[in-house]
Amino acid sequence: TRRSRRPSLSPDFVEALRAVVGAPNVSTATAVREQHGHDESMHPCAPPDVVVWPQAVGQVQELAALCHRCRVPMVPFGTGTGLEGGVNAVQGGVCFDLSRMDAIAELSLEDFSVTVEPGVTRKALNKHLRGTGLWFPVDPGADASLCGMAATGASGTNAVRYGTMRPNVLNLRVVLPDGRLLHTAGPRRQPRKRAAGYDLTSLFVGSEGTLGFLTQATLRLHPLPEATAVTVASFPSVGAAVACTVQVLQAAVPVARIEFLDEVMADACGRFSQMELPAAATLLLELHGSRRSLAEQQQQMEEIVQQNSGSSLAWAEGLDEREQLWSMRHNAWYAALALRPGCQGYSTDVCVPISRLPDVVVETKQDLQASGLTGPMVGHVGDGNFHCILVFNSQDPDEAQRIHAFTQRLGRRALAAGGTCTGEHGVGLGKRALLQEELGQEGLDTLRSIKAALDPHNLMNPGKVL
Amino acid sequence: TRRSRRPSLSPDFVEALRAVVGAPNVSTATAVREQHGHDESMHPCAPPDVVVWPQAVGQVQELAALCHRCRVPMVPFGTGTGLEGGVNAVQGGVCFDLSRMDAIAELSLEDFSVTVEPGVTRKALNKHLRGTGLWFPVDPGADASLCGMAATGASGTNAVRYGTMRPNVLNLRVVLPDGRLLHTAGPRRQPRKRAAGYDLTSLFVGSEGTLGFLTQATLRLHPLPEATAVTVASFPSVGAAVACTVQVLQAAVPVARIEFLDEVMADACGRFSQMELPAAATLLLELHGSRRSLAEQQQQMEEIVQQNSGSSLAWAEGLDEREQLWSMRHNAWYAALALRPGCQGYSTDVCVPISRLPDVVVETKQDLQASGLTGPMVGHVGDGNFHCILVFNSQDPDEAQRIHAFTQRLGRRALAAGGTCTGEHGVGLGKRALLQEELGQEGLDTLRSIKAALDPHNLMNPGKVL
Repeated sequence: TRRSRRPSLSPDFVEALRAVVGAPNVSTATAVREQHGHDESMHPCAPPDVVVWPQAVGQVQELAALCHRCRVPMVPFGTGTGLEGGVNAVQGGVCFDLSRMDAIAELSLEDFSVTVEPGVTRKALNKHLRGTGLWFPVDPGADASLCGMAATGASGTNAVRYGTMRPNVLNLRVVLPDGRLLHTAGPRRQPRKRAAGYDLTSLFVGSEGTLGFLTQATLRLHPLPEATAVTVASFPSVGAAVACTVQVLQAAVPVARIEFLDEVMADACGRFSQMELPAAATLLLELHGSRRSLAEQQQQMEEIVQQNSGSSLAWAEGLDEREQLWSMRHNAWYAALALRPGCQGYSTDVCVPISRLPDVVVETKQDLQASGLTGPMVGHVGDGNFHCILVFNSQDPDEAQRIHAFTQRLGRRALAAGGTCTGEHGVGLGKRALLQEELGQEGLDTLRSIKAALDPHNLMNPGKVL
Repeated sequence: TRRSRRPSLSPDFVEALRAVVGAPNVSTATAVREQHGHDESMHPCAPPDVVVWPQAVGQVQELAALCHRCRVPMVPFGTGTGLEGGVNAVQGGVCFDLSRMDAIAELSLEDFSVTVEPGVTRKALNKHLRGTGLWFPVDPGADASLCGMAATGASGTNAVRYGTMRPNVLNLRVVLPDGRLLHTAGPRRQPRKRAAGYDLTSLFVGSEGTLGFLTQATLRLHPLPEATAVTVASFPSVGAAVACTVQVLQAAVPVARIEFLDEVMADACGRFSQMELPAAATLLLELHGSRRSLAEQQQQMEEIVQQNSGSSLAWAEGLDEREQLWSMRHNAWYAALALRPGCQGYSTDVCVPISRLPDVVVETKQDLQASGLTGPMVGHVGDGNFHCILVFNSQDPDEAQRIHAFTQRLGRRALAAGGTCTGEHGVGLGKRALLQEELGQEGLDTLRSIKAALDPHNLMNPGKVL
């Protein structure tokens, strides 16, 4: 039935695509299609039939209208750094690689806002902002495109203080599946708040390419902190590290980052980055503020860590020293892979209410052990979100099966604890069954009726989320 | 055609309502219907045909299913403190007064969360939270119900620091128009963040009762500040007051409230509350923090106010003194009405990017003068949101016409400045034409297709928003 879904993917259709964007911006080469048919996920590659590189929003509209008329599936592509198979063209069709639309416009220092096209990554934006005193804090680790981060509902280490993508997107310019142009907050608008009709911006953030193409995002910027300090604390148990986190939040310490590593991950990270890090439940903490407020935050933090039997704190305040600590954290993925050279990695992504985090983490560690799996943990513990970086031999069917069973159990454990199967990576291909359990039939039916209303022919990134 | 929309509003239908909730919880008395047919708005009363008081969510579901079967319009009612005609039963039908469902459940101090039914107001919740060290900060002025605040997308004075309703709602239990029960984040779930499918919570926040009944809200709580300080500063111009605000935000002073009063309002508030307040552009500022961080914030604030030619600051730190200052601000509505005794009030609600605020405010003041209207201004200036409290004689058709023309011009002025026609009061009955201009045809069509998908018979609060 795949063939029946794209009756028009003929030479004429490809010629029509070329007429819109020019022949050099259309490719049917196998290598190119395979590059675009999978992201950094463990899902097998599903290449599109053709890849196009539109250069302007009008071209995206024309291409979408063409695909819409011919009922050809469309898959948006940013940097391919997603983790849940979001760019896999499971029904074939046209991959829209938007990376060549990379303008940064309308930077307003007074309004703390900027507008970016899909080719702009978070690092490119922050480089552009250098010297302005402003920055964009959402940091999912990878140097993802900002529109892709909006599409996924990304967050990461700074979310506990600065929020996820959703509150940091003021407006989106969307090409709808039939080629019409929608501005989710109205054309050229960017008030800091609004109560004017349903919140379309929040609807498209996290829609994973299933409702339309995000061809521009207006983002909320934040003032750069005057001073920053980073520290590491070891704890006797997961429970102590989480109790410390809750007390930090209750004391209203405006912590910028509070990252958890379990003892396996702390050990792996220390060895990988050649730093001394005890094999213990660990928190990596970052504080932002004026110099004076930083001193107070540091003192509060020291007291709370001590109350929870944490190690004494040494503070890194210089840029190099801080970056060294964070590169250790950002290399957690590679540190985990180094535990079993030649193996593949997959990151789980559950998020639970913080009160349930110690139990869920401890049960998950027991499950890993009972399953004979390697899966060191890192977590955005201030949000209750943690990842097991599973390292496994994908050529071993038995181990692959155990990995699958483990991730299903972990998802259900999070659901039973009042949490979600995905805090920040999205549903993509692999979590659709869990999503149904999470939302219930009425929830899923509601999502489906919204999808059917906005994409009645199911052409936008079909097979994902729903 | 009104009659044709409710063919079943017969004695039998009313009897069927009584069978669900018991006869004492159904009223067709004129006085009761009229009480429920308008909120604190300037729209004329449009009474429902009948008012029901369900006592439990199952009853709301049964009543909705009954109305749905008979195609009878349904209007949700909380406290009636809305400002845009949201509860007016313009097509008649059944008003669901949800105030008797008033349970507060599942308070979790570790998770900073609580679950409330529609009868719980923000003051009742904060009273319930006394002694816990937590509070719910969103404060629209009126003691509105929290589910009503969610329905409107309310915000108010604390939003600049704590956000509007949207980021403070974790989950909503919704009765859909046909009586099915939806939990927007899944049943019994409350992770602090999630990336699991379209964000239904954000869709229902601000839906103004047009998509379903909000019968329960799970809210995010915040730690109470250790110390609080309030001050008032006078400025030589609107521009100076706004420039001061921008610098406060750029300096990352975590200001909790930053409220603007124009010289007319400052004068009226001072006289109404018998306090000395110069007739000048004024900022009313509140800071939250630990004692030490408060001292630093106060010093930063003093420097920035001085740089912008503001008056020297005296700080109110005791509860009584602070409440006195805020009661002056909260009485702004009555202070405005006192300018023309016997007249009616109406509050406008535009919100613009902060960089455009001085121009928009100055042009609006000129417009008021040229139109011969009284409309002192208050504003949540940190968000770019301001209100003209128009005081007018509604019996004078000429003045009523000038009021209407002025509010339309003000809405269009905000739109031209990249803003919105409503920052926090909602669209309701009166801003539907402006909403179309704000979103454009594609935006409005998208809202309509969502409405049609979730409420195909247009039974939920018909005539509002769209």
